[in-house]
Amino acid sequence: MAELTDTDRQEELDSLIHEIRDTLSQQVAADRGGEPGDVATPLSELTKHDLAKLARKIERLHAADVAKVLESLPQDERLVIWELVHSDRDGEVLLEVSDSVRDTLIEVMDREEILNAASTLDTDELADLAPDLPEGMMQDVFTALPIDDREKLRFVMSYDEDTIGALMDFDLVTVRGDVTIEVALRYLRRMDSLPDHTDKLFVTDRDGLFEGVIHLKTLLINDPETLISDVMERDAVRFHPEDKARDGADAFERYDLVSAPVVDEVDRLVGRVTIDAVVDFIRESSDEERLSQVGLSEEEDIFAPVRKSVRNRAPWLAVNLVTAIVAAQVIGLFEGSIQQLVALAVLMPIVAGMGGNVGNQTITMIVRELAFRKLGGGDIRLLYGKELKVALINGVVWGGILGIVTFAMYQNAGVSAVMVAAVTLNFLSAAFFGVTIPIVRTRMGRDPALGSAVMITAITDSGGFFIFLGLATLFLL
Amino acid sequence: MAELTDTDRQEELDSLIHEIRDTLSQQVAADRGGEPGDVATPLSELTKHDLAKLARKIERLHAADVAKVLESLPQDERLVIWELVHSDRDGEVLLEVSDSVRDTLIEVMDREEILNAASTLDTDELADLAPDLPEGMMQDVFTALPIDDREKLRFVMSYDEDTIGALMDFDLVTVRGDVTIEVALRYLRRMDSLPDHTDKLFVTDRDGLFEGVIHLKTLLINDPETLISDVMERDAVRFHPEDKARDGADAFERYDLVSAPVVDEVDRLVGRVTIDAVVDFIRESSDEERLSQVGLSEEEDIFAPVRKSVRNRAPWLAVNLVTAIVAAQVIGLFEGSIQQLVALAVLMPIVAGMGGNVGNQTITMIVRELAFRKLGGGDIRLLYGKELKVALINGVVWGGILGIVTFAMYQNAGVSAVMVAAVTLNFLSAAFFGVTIPIVRTRMGRDPALGSAVMITAITDSGGFFIFLGLATLFLL
Repeated sequence: MAELTDTDRQEELDSLIHEIRDTLSQQVAADRGGEPGDVATPLSELTKHDLAKLARKIERLHAADVAKVLESLPQDERLVIWELVHSDRDGEVLLEVSDSVRDTLIEVMDREEILNAASTLDTDELADLAPDLPEGMMQDVFTALPIDDREKLRFVMSYDEDTIGALMDFDLVTVRGDVTIEVALRYLRRMDSLPDHTDKLFVTDRDGLFEGVIHLKTLLINDPETLISDVMERDAVRFHPEDKARDGADAFERYDLVSAPVVDEVDRLVGRVTIDAVVDFIRESSDEERLSQVGLSEEEDIFAPVRKSVRNRAPWLAVNLVTAIVAAQVIGLFEGSIQQLVALAVLMPIVAGMGGNVGNQTITMIVRELAFRKLGGGDIRLLYGKELKVALINGVVWGGILGIVTFAMYQNAGVSAVMVAAVTLNFLSAAFFGVTIPIVRTRMGRDPALGSAVMITAITDSGGFFIFLGLATLFLL
Repeated sequence: MAELTDTDRQEELDSLIHEIRDTLSQQVAADRGGEPGDVATPLSELTKHDLAKLARKIERLHAADVAKVLESLPQDERLVIWELVHSDRDGEVLLEVSDSVRDTLIEVMDREEILNAASTLDTDELADLAPDLPEGMMQDVFTALPIDDREKLRFVMSYDEDTIGALMDFDLVTVRGDVTIEVALRYLRRMDSLPDHTDKLFVTDRDGLFEGVIHLKTLLINDPETLISDVMERDAVRFHPEDKARDGADAFERYDLVSAPVVDEVDRLVGRVTIDAVVDFIRESSDEERLSQVGLSEEEDIFAPVRKSVRNRAPWLAVNLVTAIVAAQVIGLFEGSIQQLVALAVLMPIVAGMGGNVGNQTITMIVRELAFRKLGGGDIRLLYGKELKVALINGVVWGGILGIVTFAMYQNAGVSAVMVAAVTLNFLSAAFFGVTIPIVRTRMGRDPALGSAVMITAITDSGGFFIFLGLATLFLL
């Protein structure tokens, strides 16, 4: 009997990872003459014994924990441990690891190993794995499936990964409404097991049309003679496969769901969504959002090769190269002014930088609101009004402080006045575009968060330089 | 029988919000002479009739949907609708609305209304509400509770909001291990209802010590004569109240849990955590993270008064004011150089800006890795090595491109060479501090994400200006 809290488990896992690294690091270092991925190098007797011990420990781990161990190891050591995982578990472990690690594991599997791993998975799980399988492999996996499962796989794979269709599974337990609880309970007792996350049964009529749901706890607390249709819930939340996954996640959160039915356009029950798929979706979405804010599209673990990292980080640097050169061109227009009044060069980054902050604050507020609901025309007018007012007040307050700082630095009232005016105008421009960019992107059917920060910073940089240097040229020179 | 998919529901809700705004907007506009929050203004007969209609519609909504309606309305209209919500539901609606909206609702409730709302809530829910109640009110709520619940409330409130203790509730259904499934089922059937998210019962011995869990589905599929102790799960994941909520959320995700037991240091069962509390925690954490990246600590909905928004956005602007002034001082050191070679003023923001991007990419990668696991000494060395290599390659590549652009602009090989060198050095500095800042913050027990972006940008700005202008002064003038 294991008496471990979750924290104890995590500590055990961390120490196992350490043990693995200690055991393997010297061996792997000695082998490093070979190609990466080449794990056929003969291991010393000592290591073989150690490996057998590690294999036993790994066998006792939950698949998600095996995944964590693999993710925590550098490439070479990861592949040694991957060999130790029993082939029955390859499938479930592949599902649990991150995309970038999954690629490295599949790369070293041969055709037979992949087919074997695939055969242990449900159709909805296969659909998750499909994009990462080598070219052509998916056809083989497909052919190996029973006809019925092929249909299901084709169905799930026909939906985009941001739809309910991609989150759903087919582990449905259905009952008819015209039977008693007693009959339903007997039916359940004849089953070997119930699918995970079965908190309710789905009630259908003789044509497979969805009628309602009945919670397991309703079965448990009611008189066995009661008819299912008398105690089932008829207005349960249901989804269509083409519904947005994000809306589905909101509904799970709002109505505290554990599982929910998916029906087609004629209300025929086609599958279900469970909270674990929703939680994974929420986590992945917020991870993607975090990465996309710095222009990283692909998953990149810390053990990824340098070459991959350089490639992964290039697009954002390229975009910023362009916006930086544009900003430089704007400054270039005013070279003459700067030569006459070098204080301008000292002060201009302040105007640009503070404007960027105001713009990013506004964008964050708007994106958050847009994630939550549709904004009507009245809301948008209200938003512009409010953000411009906030920007004006902030412009006067912070511009005022900067005016004083500027005066302390240069004892020049004209430069101070230009500073106050430029900061205020740049704040107003930041607020205006901070509202406009995410709203326009949403109207165009794009993600309002993606790239908005880069756009607003480009505007507040170039715009800030132009406003400040322009005002200075007009009024001071 | 409602045959609504989730999407239909959301559309209905949106149209109800529109209807409310149409009905109320003119009335409220006419009343705007009064103080905000003053809803006692007599309403016209027409509006009274309309309000009764709205009240009926609102009555049929789920509490979470009522919350959404309230959040979607400007302050004045929100308070009119809040009056329409039946007082029995005040408590659950208050739990569902966002913090900033909750404040506005509680503000207009009198003592009796608040006590009444509180009386409809469980102790763990009261604990969530407590921080938002007016000064002194909590004591009254406390006194109104039965002794037993007071203990529980004190217990939950003694834990920080980022611990398991703050997420847990007391809706436990326990059974003894030495009874049969039959007995357990009879016991359940005598209950009026089971708590939400009861996917398992908790098995305890006669002293309340935790022994294991038994899933409802195990009860359903096994022979009624079986002893609970023969089919219960003994090594179920369990938590201590002081465990980190984030680790708990990871465990729920990893092991696909719906509910899990919380035990004290002697393994006595004290409560449970359910997936809905975990999902709320995950959502709130990622929302907080998003806001904190632009220095917003408090929730601020778009209808919040301008004055509140200005205050909410001030701290980040203040920090950035300081870092911007520091950067300006750095530039000020080189006024003479700029006067001699004005191209430096044009080019310096490019060096600073690109460095900021590299630093933020590195920080994002490291924070992500730190969220996932502890990094050992070997990992950290590997990380420095890798990030510095990536930065060096990126520096040479992007610095090289910028060198060519610079030459095209100024036909000055010296300026181009300084550009290449400065970009590369600033990238290296960005990578070094991008690894160092989050790791040091974690060692200090702080959140590695919070404020890291501001710090790295300050370093790459001031540092970038210093490196570029310094090199130029040394080699070109």
